[in-house]
Amino acid sequence: MNSIDYIGKLTGKRVSWLVDSGPKDDIAISTRIRIARNLKDTPFPPCADSENLNKVVVAATFALDKMPVIKKQMSIDMGEIGPVDAQVLLERRLISQEFCARRQNSSLVMSDLENIAVMINEEDHIRLQVIRPGLQIPEVWEEINSLETALSNELPFEFDQTLGFLTSCPTNVGTGMRASVMLHLPGLVLSNQTNQLIQAISKLGLAVRGIFGEGTDNLGNLFQVSNQSTLGETEEDIVTRLSGVISQIVKHEKNVRIKLLEKQRDMLLDHIGRSYGILKYSYIISTKEALNSLSMLRLGIDLGIIRSVDMHTVNELFICVQPAHLQKYAGKNTESEGRDRIRATFIRDALQKNNG
Amino acid sequence: MNSIDYIGKLTGKRVSWLVDSGPKDDIAISTRIRIARNLKDTPFPPCADSENLNKVVVAATFALDKMPVIKKQMSIDMGEIGPVDAQVLLERRLISQEFCARRQNSSLVMSDLENIAVMINEEDHIRLQVIRPGLQIPEVWEEINSLETALSNELPFEFDQTLGFLTSCPTNVGTGMRASVMLHLPGLVLSNQTNQLIQAISKLGLAVRGIFGEGTDNLGNLFQVSNQSTLGETEEDIVTRLSGVISQIVKHEKNVRIKLLEKQRDMLLDHIGRSYGILKYSYIISTKEALNSLSMLRLGIDLGIIRSVDMHTVNELFICVQPAHLQKYAGKNTESEGRDRIRATFIRDALQKNNG
Repeated sequence: MNSIDYIGKLTGKRVSWLVDSGPKDDIAISTRIRIARNLKDTPFPPCADSENLNKVVVAATFALDKMPVIKKQMSIDMGEIGPVDAQVLLERRLISQEFCARRQNSSLVMSDLENIAVMINEEDHIRLQVIRPGLQIPEVWEEINSLETALSNELPFEFDQTLGFLTSCPTNVGTGMRASVMLHLPGLVLSNQTNQLIQAISKLGLAVRGIFGEGTDNLGNLFQVSNQSTLGETEEDIVTRLSGVISQIVKHEKNVRIKLLEKQRDMLLDHIGRSYGILKYSYIISTKEALNSLSMLRLGIDLGIIRSVDMHTVNELFICVQPAHLQKYAGKNTESEGRDRIRATFIRDALQKNNG
Repeated sequence: MNSIDYIGKLTGKRVSWLVDSGPKDDIAISTRIRIARNLKDTPFPPCADSENLNKVVVAATFALDKMPVIKKQMSIDMGEIGPVDAQVLLERRLISQEFCARRQNSSLVMSDLENIAVMINEEDHIRLQVIRPGLQIPEVWEEINSLETALSNELPFEFDQTLGFLTSCPTNVGTGMRASVMLHLPGLVLSNQTNQLIQAISKLGLAVRGIFGEGTDNLGNLFQVSNQSTLGETEEDIVTRLSGVISQIVKHEKNVRIKLLEKQRDMLLDHIGRSYGILKYSYIISTKEALNSLSMLRLGIDLGIIRSVDMHTVNELFICVQPAHLQKYAGKNTESEGRDRIRATFIRDALQKNNG
């Protein structure tokens, strides 16, 4: 199958790591680890010419083909696909913003279940990614670590005895690892405690970001918490520290939800109910309103207030209401206003189906 | 039954002139005519003492008792009831704001179906009111005219050969008649044409007001159109002129709705859908938001977009979501915030029942 057809098929498919349940996935939606590696004696992507880059694509793809963990592997030549198709991959969290923007001489190798994705020639030659539902930092680490070990037997990686793995950007030197958990924190947002949280977390050497790229803040009340540094700590240390902090945040969010239910029940029910009503009956809805309403609906399901909608439907809608997915569904490029209509129809249909 | 018990029973009852269907009631909700009369050789209320006023109450009640058209008559001593009970009568459009505020030495005589109401000692000794669903100006005029004729055989009215009937306020001298139609004009509001309409109507010697008292403008997109003057025109002239203008407005509103459906269909469906969603699922809702949402729901029913809700349920909710009704339902005086919760529950229940 060619890349464009494959992405077309992808948009119609459920996102497997969102459909499956995972531990604590009432609050921790997914766990992801990315590892950056570069090939020995090969110019790093920012300094490489086309010939160098293409050689890396060939070598890395060949090596990845031998990895048994990547079942039903698909290779997408990023230079072959257009901006909307690339955006679909970004919306499904398979690639980064930078990879999406600069597509020449780069390639994505991914498993059909979308749980493993490898960007070739992003900022580094290789960016491995493993993602799983719920809170599974050690499990994801184990999986990506064994993949990396297997891959390193095929491809020699650039490594410095003092610094560790070398990368294009100094912020990744060392472990080259970025572990992150996507958290749904509507309780903390409703009780205005996120600023506090963000400050506390950054003091612990971790970073908090909105999940929809720069400047999206807490759209959909979704936050991504990840390790800030890659140097001076082993991967195991990072995994342990991050797991500890995330568990604390999850506990805190749970407590806040219980308090809201006890002390501001009507306010909470009102937020949830209105959001459900808007998702169910609106005919024009922006990405922002959709994501924030979906967040409240998800909270309502978590709290057992809304029983007619399945949690996984909501999880998937978080992905599917984004612009590129909607354009693929509509079968055409549409401007923002048109998308707001398609989005509303898509959500109404999804909730209808789910009800029936 | 005493007055307080009777009003308690009233709040649980459907408003008969809203439950019945009437001509053109997709746009014209109800037609009402009020006639002001004063007893001969008796000081008008603003100049009368308690003794005078009480004599008027006795004489008028005695005369009204003989009127066969007022079936199942009830007499409410306004001095006996509290402010919330009085407010209930106001919200059901049985009495005026002034009558509600100043309750000593005054009385309301009404039919059990609420279609006939007589305020004794409002600004004038007698204010007759007849109300019917839909657009029925000549029919209401005929009914109130025969009631007035019958009553004038029992009570001599103050009448001047040149001026006509005399009243406390010069704006009512002459016919003493105010005919008004309550119109639901969401189409004109959505297409920003109400200012134009109000200007055009006032040039025709008619007045346009919001229906929920001074300063409520177009709350719920409801407007009351009535004759401005009572002097220099016969009642029949007023009836004919008002009927003509109202028919024009109804036609105009219909055309605008069709145009909106054709040219801004999604915007219209979005407004209607969101309003329905909010009414169905919110837990806290203000009077203003409730009335405006009910208006959109009513439009949706009119246009055949919403089929699961009965029009009369919506008509009645316009009355029942108001503060005094809600306090009677709750069985206690509650502050505004508490009422917003009771209102939301009341609406959810009403729409639920209606669905089932």
